[in-house]
Amino acid sequence: MAHLNRSAAQRLMQAEGLDALVLFSAEGFAHATGAAPGVATMWRREGAVAVLVPADPELAETVVISDLFAANLRRDSHIDDVRESPIWVEAMTLPEADLDADLAIAFDGIWDAPGRPQDNRRPETFDAAITYGHLRDALAEKGLARGRIGIELSAVAANGHAPLIKALDPAVLIDGTAVARQLRAMKSPEEIALLRSAVEVAEVGIAAVRDAIAPGIRRSDLAAVWSSTVATAGAGKPMTGHWEYISVGADPWGGDAVAATGDLVKVDVGCLMRGYTSDSGRTFVVGAPRRLQSELHDALMAGFRAGFELLHPGTPLAEVHRATQSAIRGRGLTGYCRGHFGHSLGTGPGSEEWPFISASAQTTIESGMVLAFETPIYVTGVGGMIIEDQVEITPEGPVSMNRLTHELLAC
Amino acid sequence: MAHLNRSAAQRLMQAEGLDALVLFSAEGFAHATGAAPGVATMWRREGAVAVLVPADPELAETVVISDLFAANLRRDSHIDDVRESPIWVEAMTLPEADLDADLAIAFDGIWDAPGRPQDNRRPETFDAAITYGHLRDALAEKGLARGRIGIELSAVAANGHAPLIKALDPAVLIDGTAVARQLRAMKSPEEIALLRSAVEVAEVGIAAVRDAIAPGIRRSDLAAVWSSTVATAGAGKPMTGHWEYISVGADPWGGDAVAATGDLVKVDVGCLMRGYTSDSGRTFVVGAPRRLQSELHDALMAGFRAGFELLHPGTPLAEVHRATQSAIRGRGLTGYCRGHFGHSLGTGPGSEEWPFISASAQTTIESGMVLAFETPIYVTGVGGMIIEDQVEITPEGPVSMNRLTHELLAC
Repeated sequence: MAHLNRSAAQRLMQAEGLDALVLFSAEGFAHATGAAPGVATMWRREGAVAVLVPADPELAETVVISDLFAANLRRDSHIDDVRESPIWVEAMTLPEADLDADLAIAFDGIWDAPGRPQDNRRPETFDAAITYGHLRDALAEKGLARGRIGIELSAVAANGHAPLIKALDPAVLIDGTAVARQLRAMKSPEEIALLRSAVEVAEVGIAAVRDAIAPGIRRSDLAAVWSSTVATAGAGKPMTGHWEYISVGADPWGGDAVAATGDLVKVDVGCLMRGYTSDSGRTFVVGAPRRLQSELHDALMAGFRAGFELLHPGTPLAEVHRATQSAIRGRGLTGYCRGHFGHSLGTGPGSEEWPFISASAQTTIESGMVLAFETPIYVTGVGGMIIEDQVEITPEGPVSMNRLTHELLAC
Repeated sequence: MAHLNRSAAQRLMQAEGLDALVLFSAEGFAHATGAAPGVATMWRREGAVAVLVPADPELAETVVISDLFAANLRRDSHIDDVRESPIWVEAMTLPEADLDADLAIAFDGIWDAPGRPQDNRRPETFDAAITYGHLRDALAEKGLARGRIGIELSAVAANGHAPLIKALDPAVLIDGTAVARQLRAMKSPEEIALLRSAVEVAEVGIAAVRDAIAPGIRRSDLAAVWSSTVATAGAGKPMTGHWEYISVGADPWGGDAVAATGDLVKVDVGCLMRGYTSDSGRTFVVGAPRRLQSELHDALMAGFRAGFELLHPGTPLAEVHRATQSAIRGRGLTGYCRGHFGHSLGTGPGSEEWPFISASAQTTIESGMVLAFETPIYVTGVGGMIIEDQVEITPEGPVSMNRLTHELLAC
């Protein structure tokens, strides 16, 4: 399934004077192809995979993928023009293997079969030169050999830039990072469904942690409740991982604390569906909240409300930051500052992706974005606190994917 | 604790004519400081953290870390010269918080306290310019303002290179990636202990999976046995994660297969201790192995034995690759080829780090390396098979950290 919007790509590339865009990151690949980039992207180095997206929507996209993940890609992606780059993993198919056969007989003919690496040699990891050769061929076939090509340079290392420029010569390579990340920030219905499914499972986990909170329980116990609950709730779904930042007690960064009456418990967690991570947060108290805890949470809630109602298409992200921070400062935290109050979500290396809800953001909210919106504070001596929802931006405004109450719950 | 060997650093830098080395990657940071790089490295972009290692061992190392992780670094690292770069996370300390106080009173004076970000403003994520400013100051203080500085360019994006060059001008920046990765491949006793602890827990998990194998069990059941077992076995240790590539049945890449008599079960797994991942693999059969399965495993075992005995200091890695592949081919897999038969281990983004046991490796084995050594094959129609140990290279030769038998066990 295609997640990348070709007409948006056309518009953004025309504005930048680009003839095509080349994506190298694992997350750019997943967004553009709808398929997994495979193990060769583990090092996050350029040339393991690539997607070529011409500005002209009449020109077909081209994808370069490892031989190991090519079948998977052909099954999962809408892109028909698939070119392979062999990697280090030795794999083959014996469609009707006789398990009682002699090995040499069973493998007879395999080593000369079509699709085997040349001379039965495989690269140490992957061979970027082969990937670039495929890109060069595809550019030439599309009449773009001398084109202005936007490259996702954020996914190219400084010491890998010159070989890329040389390999694609005479194409003119331009930084296409801004176009790539703008496209990735607009989610397809399938991506939105994955993010919704991820947050649904995460909320089952948050509720289980909430129900397990009691004096004497350890942080590690709550982490285990989280892990086992989401593993069960995610069974049968395409869950690919989960993570937790749970803290217990007055030190938001303090190891394996044991909960005592009056302690804060901060639960900031996510589940991954096909690599797409959710991000949600809630705060609890062991027993009844004390005055300072309540007032802090009220301040965070005031910020949350002030910002949330601005999450409409057309609002500058910087305006959401201003309103959120201003509301929190207005509740007595007069110097409270945070660099961002949330971020996009996807399959990137961390749980946070561009754009950010920050004072310096140059971006306006668009329909189809999914933003984690959060108002946290971490006070050593009091504890960690967070309110965080995952929000789908629709033409009518923000729709939270969360169901759990935002209140500071006494457990 | 220091993992980076300053005298090796001096020798390698002298050979390259470098006055200092600057590390930007999370794994380079962890190796050089012995401490966690923190959340600002989640995007794997240059400038979130930095370590400056002068070639002259008489000159002190300098580290730049986020304000959020500075206390942690001062506790965990031997490096005294610590400079801070504020990040987006709002955090503060109320050492003697009165939980019944009014919020404004409790936070009185906090916003002007030393160490607060200037004007109570925080960057959207992190500010590479502040990190570079600290590096520039440190270079000047050490008399290296015009020095030849090796930069870990593999951790600098192509579109982040020019700002770095400008910020450190008039220093001469040279690609220091090769020096950085050579240093990281030599493990300290503490790193070796973490990797040993990780593999010990992983083997408890492998044994539990082995014991759970029976007709009718699903791949997901075995994955759950793995997760819960290592979570329990890792309790009380600094375990930061675990991963599994378990396959069941004739398709090495086939989703949630149900085990039947005669099926292969491949278990390729790892646990992370303070980010350092183990990597081990074993293969099992549900019931008695069939002829083809046994002959395949014998071929992998022949390769494993041939390569393992060469894992001595001074042996070129390419020679280990040649011997391993040749032995496997000699058992009837005449065109079998793999890009590498193993790799170093560390805290990098994937489970595999440079150097690789490959045909093109230019590196010689050194005492103090820890290498995963593996002979896998993936045959759709038969199944996945692997033999993989984690090996400490000592002056006397290879010492496997694994205890479980290499045999193809019938379960």
